[in-house]
Amino acid sequence: MTTSYDLVIRGGTVGSATGSFAANVAVKDGRIAAVGQGLPAGAREIDATGKLVLPGGIDTHAHVEQVSAGGLLNADTFESATTSAAFGGNTTLISFAAQHRGSDLRKVVDDYAALAKRGALIDYAFHLIVANPDAKTIQTDLPALIGEGHASIKIFMTYDLIKIDDEPLLDLLLTARKNRALVCVHAENHGMIAWMGKKLVEKGYVAPKYHAISHPRGSEPEAFNRLITAAELLDQPIMIFHVSTAEGAAVIRQARGRGLKVFAETCPQYLFLTKQDLDKPGLEGAKWMCSPPPREAADQDALWQALALGDIQTVSSDHAPYRFDETGKLSAGPNPNFKQIANGLPGLEVRLPLLFDALVSKGRPEFAGRGLEAFVELTATAPASLYNLPNKGALLPGYDADIAIWDPQKTVTITDEAMHDLTGFTPFAGRSVTGWPERVIRRGEEIVADGAVKASPGSGRWLGRKGGWAAEPTGRLVADMDPATNFGAKLL
Amino acid sequence: MTTSYDLVIRGGTVGSATGSFAANVAVKDGRIAAVGQGLPAGAREIDATGKLVLPGGIDTHAHVEQVSAGGLLNADTFESATTSAAFGGNTTLISFAAQHRGSDLRKVVDDYAALAKRGALIDYAFHLIVANPDAKTIQTDLPALIGEGHASIKIFMTYDLIKIDDEPLLDLLLTARKNRALVCVHAENHGMIAWMGKKLVEKGYVAPKYHAISHPRGSEPEAFNRLITAAELLDQPIMIFHVSTAEGAAVIRQARGRGLKVFAETCPQYLFLTKQDLDKPGLEGAKWMCSPPPREAADQDALWQALALGDIQTVSSDHAPYRFDETGKLSAGPNPNFKQIANGLPGLEVRLPLLFDALVSKGRPEFAGRGLEAFVELTATAPASLYNLPNKGALLPGYDADIAIWDPQKTVTITDEAMHDLTGFTPFAGRSVTGWPERVIRRGEEIVADGAVKASPGSGRWLGRKGGWAAEPTGRLVADMDPATNFGAKLL
Amino acid sequence: MTTSYDLVIRGGTVGSATGSFAANVAVKDGRIAAVGQGLPAGAREIDATGKLVLPGGIDTHAHVEQVSAGGLLNADTFESATTSAAFGGNTTLISFAAQHRGSDLRKVVDDYAALAKRGALIDYAFHLIVANPDAKTIQTDLPALIGEGHASIKIFMTYDLIKIDDEPLLDLLLTARKNRALVCVHAENHGMIAWMGKKLVEKGYVAPKYHAISHPRGSEPEAFNRLITAAELLDQPIMIFHVSTAEGAAVIRQARGRGLKVFAETCPQYLFLTKQDLDKPGLEGAKWMCSPPPREAADQDALWQALALGDIQTVSSDHAPYRFDETGKLSAGPNPNFKQIANGLPGLEVRLPLLFDALVSKGRPEFAGRGLEAFVELTATAPASLYNLPNKGALLPGYDADIAIWDPQKTVTITDEAMHDLTGFTPFAGRSVTGWPERVIRRGEEIVADGAVKASPGSGRWLGRKGGWAAEPTGRLVADMDPATNFGAKLL
Amino acid sequence: MTTSYDLVIRGGTVGSATGSFAANVAVKDGRIAAVGQGLPAGAREIDATGKLVLPGGIDTHAHVEQVSAGGLLNADTFESATTSAAFGGNTTLISFAAQHRGSDLRKVVDDYAALAKRGALIDYAFHLIVANPDAKTIQTDLPALIGEGHASIKIFMTYDLIKIDDEPLLDLLLTARKNRALVCVHAENHGMIAWMGKKLVEKGYVAPKYHAISHPRGSEPEAFNRLITAAELLDQPIMIFHVSTAEGAAVIRQARGRGLKVFAETCPQYLFLTKQDLDKPGLEGAKWMCSPPPREAADQDALWQALALGDIQTVSSDHAPYRFDETGKLSAGPNPNFKQIANGLPGLEVRLPLLFDALVSKGRPEFAGRGLEAFVELTATAPASLYNLPNKGALLPGYDADIAIWDPQKTVTITDEAMHDLTGFTPFAGRSVTGWPERVIRRGEEIVADGAVKASPGSGRWLGRKGGWAAEPTGRLVADMDPATNFGAKLL
Repeated sequence: MTTSYDLVIRGGTVGSATGSFAANVAVKDGRIAAVGQGLPAGAREIDATGKLVLPGGIDTHAHVEQVSAGGLLNADTFESATTSAAFGGNTTLISFAAQHRGSDLRKVVDDYAALAKRGALIDYAFHLIVANPDAKTIQTDLPALIGEGHASIKIFMTYDLIKIDDEPLLDLLLTARKNRALVCVHAENHGMIAWMGKKLVEKGYVAPKYHAISHPRGSEPEAFNRLITAAELLDQPIMIFHVSTAEGAAVIRQARGRGLKVFAETCPQYLFLTKQDLDKPGLEGAKWMCSPPPREAADQDALWQALALGDIQTVSSDHAPYRFDETGKLSAGPNPNFKQIANGLPGLEVRLPLLFDALVSKGRPEFAGRGLEAFVELTATAPASLYNLPNKGALLPGYDADIAIWDPQKTVTITDEAMHDLTGFTPFAGRSVTGWPERVIRRGEEIVADGAVKASPGSGRWLGRKGGWAAEPTGRLVADMDPATNFGAKLL
Repeated sequence: MTTSYDLVIRGGTVGSATGSFAANVAVKDGRIAAVGQGLPAGAREIDATGKLVLPGGIDTHAHVEQVSAGGLLNADTFESATTSAAFGGNTTLISFAAQHRGSDLRKVVDDYAALAKRGALIDYAFHLIVANPDAKTIQTDLPALIGEGHASIKIFMTYDLIKIDDEPLLDLLLTARKNRALVCVHAENHGMIAWMGKKLVEKGYVAPKYHAISHPRGSEPEAFNRLITAAELLDQPIMIFHVSTAEGAAVIRQARGRGLKVFAETCPQYLFLTKQDLDKPGLEGAKWMCSPPPREAADQDALWQALALGDIQTVSSDHAPYRFDETGKLSAGPNPNFKQIANGLPGLEVRLPLLFDALVSKGRPEFAGRGLEAFVELTATAPASLYNLPNKGALLPGYDADIAIWDPQKTVTITDEAMHDLTGFTPFAGRSVTGWPERVIRRGEEIVADGAVKASPGSGRWLGRKGGWAAEPTGRLVADMDPATNFGAKLL
Repeated sequence: MTTSYDLVIRGGTVGSATGSFAANVAVKDGRIAAVGQGLPAGAREIDATGKLVLPGGIDTHAHVEQVSAGGLLNADTFESATTSAAFGGNTTLISFAAQHRGSDLRKVVDDYAALAKRGALIDYAFHLIVANPDAKTIQTDLPALIGEGHASIKIFMTYDLIKIDDEPLLDLLLTARKNRALVCVHAENHGMIAWMGKKLVEKGYVAPKYHAISHPRGSEPEAFNRLITAAELLDQPIMIFHVSTAEGAAVIRQARGRGLKVFAETCPQYLFLTKQDLDKPGLEGAKWMCSPPPREAADQDALWQALALGDIQTVSSDHAPYRFDETGKLSAGPNPNFKQIANGLPGLEVRLPLLFDALVSKGRPEFAGRGLEAFVELTATAPASLYNLPNKGALLPGYDADIAIWDPQKTVTITDEAMHDLTGFTPFAGRSVTGWPERVIRRGEEIVADGAVKASPGSGRWLGRKGGWAAEPTGRLVADMDPATNFGAKLL
Repeated sequence: MTTSYDLVIRGGTVGSATGSFAANVAVKDGRIAAVGQGLPAGAREIDATGKLVLPGGIDTHAHVEQVSAGGLLNADTFESATTSAAFGGNTTLISFAAQHRGSDLRKVVDDYAALAKRGALIDYAFHLIVANPDAKTIQTDLPALIGEGHASIKIFMTYDLIKIDDEPLLDLLLTARKNRALVCVHAENHGMIAWMGKKLVEKGYVAPKYHAISHPRGSEPEAFNRLITAAELLDQPIMIFHVSTAEGAAVIRQARGRGLKVFAETCPQYLFLTKQDLDKPGLEGAKWMCSPPPREAADQDALWQALALGDIQTVSSDHAPYRFDETGKLSAGPNPNFKQIANGLPGLEVRLPLLFDALVSKGRPEFAGRGLEAFVELTATAPASLYNLPNKGALLPGYDADIAIWDPQKTVTITDEAMHDLTGFTPFAGRSVTGWPERVIRRGEEIVADGAVKASPGSGRWLGRKGGWAAEPTGRLVADMDPATNFGAKLL
């Protein structure tokens, strides 16, 4: 009845979303075989005494080897990005297959799949960015691609070249509903941002710091509210990306309280940075430019609270790597105004250490006494559940043996040089964090250990996904769509 | 020391927004000279025994002699519209000078001014509809026209040919702020309405009743919220036209509670009709089509409550006269779908009787005991105050002698035939109301009496207006616009 | 047809809740006969050139010649109090007939009526304080007294000797509902205040300033919410006295938004003072002690906003005169702790000047452009309407000729010495205000002019009042009391 | 390195709060040793093929062998109650040590401890009911008892003989804060309930069904709000018991949104019954009488939603067993009015099957796709976490081997006769549920199997508890208690 295990990790403390406990972890055929005491020896054994044995991190929001709508290629390849992610304790990544206006979604997916297949070190999936919501995309390609396992769509409500207006937004929500895909949204009011940017530049406020002002706070809750109104009309679940403001979090809380399926994400840049970080000499502030921009300290508090309350369920990196040179941030020349500087920060590698430090080592008061549980929940268990990543996100028997072994005592000062991605800088440089992932195992295979990569590019696998519970409609049709109250009209 | 009055109205009960009382009303040189007992004789005397002597009604929202963006001329001239309004107890009207895409606002105003000058029987002003928010309109024409006394702008957030997007909306709000004009808005989410209309027609739901469904409830509060967010950014007062839903009223209440200058209007069609009224055989329902559409009985209750709470401050007609024939509702041929039918209802003549009946004769419970005060406030005093109509809206010494003498006992059944406008029907036909304006006096001159017109077309005067208190910003700049917190940027 | 007037006030600007205008005011038989131009001469004429002619102020909350539950007699007689009020521009006062535990309400009313009849210089009415809610009081005396014209009850939710618990509160609300009386409430959570006071004194925090802390902010919205819940159960209108906190105002706004008949008052001490005013050397702070205590500057802003929104409808003085000596504040000896110091401030004389200065002279931004209208509304028109004071509160024909003639330019520095009440100090001493009532006329009779009293004690009249619109239930029974949904039980 | 296990449960599906998976469960020395595949043989093996292997249920609210304040002994002993609980799939129980007015808390605890030690079949702890908040109880006994492992207090805001008023409530909250105990509260407004009961009985509405009306809906949110205000003042965590109304749930949600530590429980009677269930002939309805009473179907929906949102974290039975005879419900004689009938329902045995059926078998839509996870969370993991029950609530290595093996396919019709408690009836009789606990293991020992008890009375152990994370204050002192803003006063 006993099996010989491939690997047993002994002596550590296993962390889960519901508690931590001393236990050994046995792996067989790339999966967790057993957790506990009294386990037979494995073919290989790892001593984790004094360490935390955690599920590998899942980063569900990263731009990798992606060309922007403006034609700018970001700095990372799948190899560099997933290497960086692995060093940061991650074993799974969701990046994007990014359609542009006029491009063919099927081909886009094929192209990104080829790039990832060649380079990825960790497992991955794609959100399908739809920027060309024509009939073929909506009626043919999306249903097929969702059916094939690409069960999430990403759209932008802002950015000139890719934004989706309210009418095609409803088309997309309806297609998502019929095919059970989660719709992820960059939700900001485009007009307000465009207007503010134009006004600022006109008046000569061109430094990077003005980027923070160019996205008025209200542009976030406004777009959330509009999106939620549309989603409610069709009873379609949505995931709101990178919440940055207290008001935005409040809109989400209100919608959830009404029973709507509104999920949300925030990112380290909104939990640890403020707009003051952009106030640097010259163009230096460009390194802290992302959209939405970092806000105020009070927003940080509100976001932590929203995480503790479950209003926001996950923390991703929104890794968007643009080098601080002419290939990236400074592609418009040596003297750009902030509207000409690419938005985006790298973050794959430091997301987990920053969160571990805040939640576990420092013990954010909102989670006091349960920081480790929250860390596992927010960075592994919840992402796997929301995006229906099969057998990911927890160290349970039968699940993929995706494991990060953390030294909870190790203090590290983040530096640009230490990062393994190709961006060349990190906006978190200079911060010291306590707790660091020392060894990372993906499906039973060690991929990072002793500060070195142990696996080969392309060893990461694509994860086919169905919509799962998060993408299911609630079944509560709003009045406008309910034939019983609408003269018999059946629209869904 | 005494003066000889031109006219004294004796024996009636004078109504005001703060109370009613037995008093005589003396008029001199077109103005109220005195109110009370012991007044010397007038050159002319009117016996108002048993009658209510009220300020003439002010209807601040009517489309008169207006060409739609689609080229459809509405049924009324200034003469017919103001005649109808006068029979309905009104002495002042604000209609529109309606710019289209590509048209010149200055010329538009001149054209409407000429039409009104020729035909108007009662005093009037214009809201400037801006549908072509180019530089000349915003930077040159609007400042000049506002300065000349056109202190209110009207914009549409929906309708393909005239809608204003979020970015030019901010331009308009800023111009209004700098020049102190109130910005009135038709606020519905365009995309939702367009999408629903398309879906309904595609599926064969083409009868007029489906118009009611094609404007999802959420399209109203969504647009209100978006508009309010924009107005808050610039600290610019707004007037939200024709509120139709409970949710819309709630958004307004919430904004006002935050100290924002958000004003609102509703109309008889939202207080007395429901979407069921559109459910008629054949195309008949077209007569009840307006935008937004009538909603549910619960919305009516919410709107009455909002009026009682002061969240909505005024009730206008939104008179939009399209005949039920090929010149109007049926201009697209004998077999139109609802998207091809012009939106709009006549209402100038019955607005006041409907409200009087509800508030005074039947005594809506929200106003119990103060129905007459509410009637005067909502239909005369508040409109004059909000739009800064000089010396209008109350029977106070020095104010224009705009007076309607009502028989509070007279019961009238509304019929299509009895109306004096040129629409040919009224959606309120068949309703009986108690209370009717029998005699109407404008600046001391009788214009309606004994069921006949007594004044000549063109005797109405244009009313030049400054912005007034309602159009003043609060001075509380939101954080995004406040240089003190925004790296010194000064945008206003 | 003309009458000879007794008095005509010429040349002034008349103020009303809906606008101000140049007009003469004619008085006949103690009432306003006419307002306007062209009026015949009066037997007497007053020149009001450059002055504002306003309705006399109505102060609806003052403790006069009242014995506290603890046996302390307050400093004023009806003569001194009404003299002070008259100098402050008031012509009507509502004070209290204050029952104590064990006392007979009928006798209480008779006693206060006798005192007032002897001393009052201005017209007056009583709120019936019920502190002994036994069967006779509730079932016999209250119905009779309400029927005789005492249409308002006052109760306390705090103070050991007079507080009404939740169960008798319901008895009182029910009796009020059946007899149409408005129920006015001092609503603070007794337990919290008692607990805090005890703790503070135990720990040696005994100075007057600790009084401010001893009433936790939460004790106010808590009691408001409890009271509103009870009132909603029985559909009985309530008036919440002396709102002091932003949270309290928010609870009221929320309740009103649900359609409940919740009215509210605040006082100058909450609009102009803060808890910092109590922080004086020695016992001096006792002069600023009242209950609830003054709060923070942010609360002041919230209360102004609530007034502007109509959530709070009136501003009274809550005049509670205790001298700063052994007869009043220091009755417990020379070294009292704050729990031993009587709560209460004088305010009859400065209420109107303080409000005039803020609203009219300085122009609070919440009312910008309508400060004078707000002043009249809050201090005269609304109080008369809410408490149904017959023919009071406005300068309309047929109304009592209660008139205050203000010099809007006159600047006065408030001093203890200038006050005409017997308290001996004013907490507003040292403040300069612009705008002062120079001449006060009550029912056509001059009572203050040229800095002197012109009428005799006892010339004020008692005002019998029915409940009026404010005291009418809404008719919307909550579910718990509705027999249709409650197994047929009929409780009302 | 391997151990020989005492017991291995093979072939089942293990359920946890974060997911379910096929795994074997190994037990050693009463604890979970390992979970997974490849485990060595145990001394004993159980075949769980086709079964769910779940953590034993934890019922945190039951009245056992308790004498009411009125002297009524409830029907169950610790033996009967824990037997019933065990048959219902439970392995841990928190009942009460119930102080009465005048009784000594230390002695009360000793007495209940002796009863439980003798009879309990499953593990147990006590909430300390405080009904006599005198100095000894608060300053001496509570600190000591909490320190000894009784880390939760229970108080009642209603019931004449035991209710705690607002002032001693603050004393208790402060003692709890200083000693880190969670304060559990029966929160209803006492006055409203007393008043309604009196009125109903006076008017002859005496049948059991009128009990439902005698607790006005508002009495619940009112008390919640008052309690929360008090708890916020002292920054003390609270647990609100048996939420019954939508409004109550809304108050909790609002408080949690502000960051307060407010936890909540509901019970099957509020999720599955309505007030209509009390509408039975004669006195039969008494079987459905509990406090608060069952409400409406809309409340059920709101409570399920609140559970899904995490606003309510746990579902207990509030088992309060009174027989339908003269020893219990009918102790006041054969013809009682509803005020004379003991409140309370049995529920220990059916709580889990009812919830399993709703969440797992029928799949409540609020939890769709995660019903099993929710079932485990609400009935085992969350209760253990909130009340800090050491090593309880999940099948994790090192945790107590408290296991219930469920047959998810088995359909059972609940009957009075099948129950193992001594109440003699169940208000859920006649309902069919799918899913039944077939075998129950407590600390590795089988206690129920094959429909029979396998363990002996007294084999259950008392669980000493510290406060844990839930009982920790947030550290965010409200302004009123913060010396920095309160003239330096330090009260905590």
